[in-house]
Amino acid sequence: MNDKKRIKLVVAYDGTNYCGWQIQTNGPTIEEELNKALTHLLGEEIHVIGASRTDAGVHSLGNVCVFDTETNIPAEKICYAVNMGLPEDIAVQESCEVDPGWHPRKCESTKTYEYRILNRPIPLPTRRADTYFYYGDLDIEAMRKAAKLMEGTHDFASFCSSGSAAESTVRTVYSCEILTDGDLITVRVSGSGFLYNMVRIMVGTLLLVGSGQLAPEDIPRIIEARDRSGAGPTAPAKGLTMIGISFEK
Amino acid sequence: MNDKKRIKLVVAYDGTNYCGWQIQTNGPTIEEELNKALTHLLGEEIHVIGASRTDAGVHSLGNVCVFDTETNIPAEKICYAVNMGLPEDIAVQESCEVDPGWHPRKCESTKTYEYRILNRPIPLPTRRADTYFYYGDLDIEAMRKAAKLMEGTHDFASFCSSGSAAESTVRTVYSCEILTDGDLITVRVSGSGFLYNMVRIMVGTLLLVGSGQLAPEDIPRIIEARDRSGAGPTAPAKGLTMIGISFEK
Repeated sequence: MNDKKRIKLVVAYDGTNYCGWQIQTNGPTIEEELNKALTHLLGEEIHVIGASRTDAGVHSLGNVCVFDTETNIPAEKICYAVNMGLPEDIAVQESCEVDPGWHPRKCESTKTYEYRILNRPIPLPTRRADTYFYYGDLDIEAMRKAAKLMEGTHDFASFCSSGSAAESTVRTVYSCEILTDGDLITVRVSGSGFLYNMVRIMVGTLLLVGSGQLAPEDIPRIIEARDRSGAGPTAPAKGLTMIGISFEK
Repeated sequence: MNDKKRIKLVVAYDGTNYCGWQIQTNGPTIEEELNKALTHLLGEEIHVIGASRTDAGVHSLGNVCVFDTETNIPAEKICYAVNMGLPEDIAVQESCEVDPGWHPRKCESTKTYEYRILNRPIPLPTRRADTYFYYGDLDIEAMRKAAKLMEGTHDFASFCSSGSAAESTVRTVYSCEILTDGDLITVRVSGSGFLYNMVRIMVGTLLLVGSGQLAPEDIPRIIEARDRSGAGPTAPAKGLTMIGISFEK
């Protein structure tokens, strides 16, 4: 018998047809598909541990997970082998060996998300799966000011859906930028971690600022209130993509 | 009874779930969905006439069609009204009135297509519907030279699938450019018109150049041969998007 080694995977997926990352009884999940494909490939029962439990419908270019295995397959080749057994809406981008004790939720990291808003009069069918269609006028400069005021270390309780198990609601947002490319508006957020639905509530709030229902100056008051009802609605899942996670060494 | 007026539509679609533009017996088509939605909306039997009969799986941002109607709905509002009755993978972008005799296949026009190649080691699930995944190394400069040699007025019989009903195989390619953005390679082609599968065969041939199986200098010989077997394979439909059509006044 070989010693167990710990393998880290970087995983991309189109979340459209999944009930999110975490295994549940009411439908297919990314975690479940990975466990099935890895168990079949390696001939051992595999249970991956994910870095980020993305919601139903959220996409990823680089979520991270680890698992332990006795396999002799070189760590760097596992990504190619497991992809052959995965559905086409999930693809492992990288695989490598890490220290046996390394846990992706128990170390410092920076997570980056992008939320894409398609701002035009009529929907575009080719972008319906990965953008949120919004036809009203948006004041991008006001959204930029509001986004800037969300940066920093704050108690983000106002930006957290109920049902969260988080002990503390303090998080650090390193940057929150608004990028535009024609009719595509991208909200790019990096932080030490995010509460349940936090990025989607930040975006829902920025849309209220863009449409003039809130002013950028309202943001500090909304944060300070520590009350979910003061922030905007939770923007739809399909506009959100986890871009990647970088870990401190 | 009102006089009949002719309406022009600009139509965007995700072609993934369709057997192409033109009505056929073996599955749903864009033309059929438009006829159904317009007939239902206007209470008259509508048959659209399309500018370009895109293949199964090909996408569009701006295909064009016309139809005749007695409706009192202002021409510019028809796009919003018909979209409510269309599936979410088809959306009319614009509607306007044109001269009663105007026919989108019987006037001079410039058609623009883009073919997207995702050139990286591992597929990306979020781009699987609108790009062709190609993992081998590609020599972009060689592809650019070859693309340049495809421009101009030529007999493109070598770039036409059998089964075409075209009387002449002479066409003018105004431009054929290779654009890159990270791991995305876009072949952008504009021309007076294209033969059956012509853009996809041009791309299949450019990929042979990119991979070193053909040299850019082979292109004039391939064109001159007027023989389909000399050109490359037909690249998969899903990488192709009709960008739009501009008509001479």
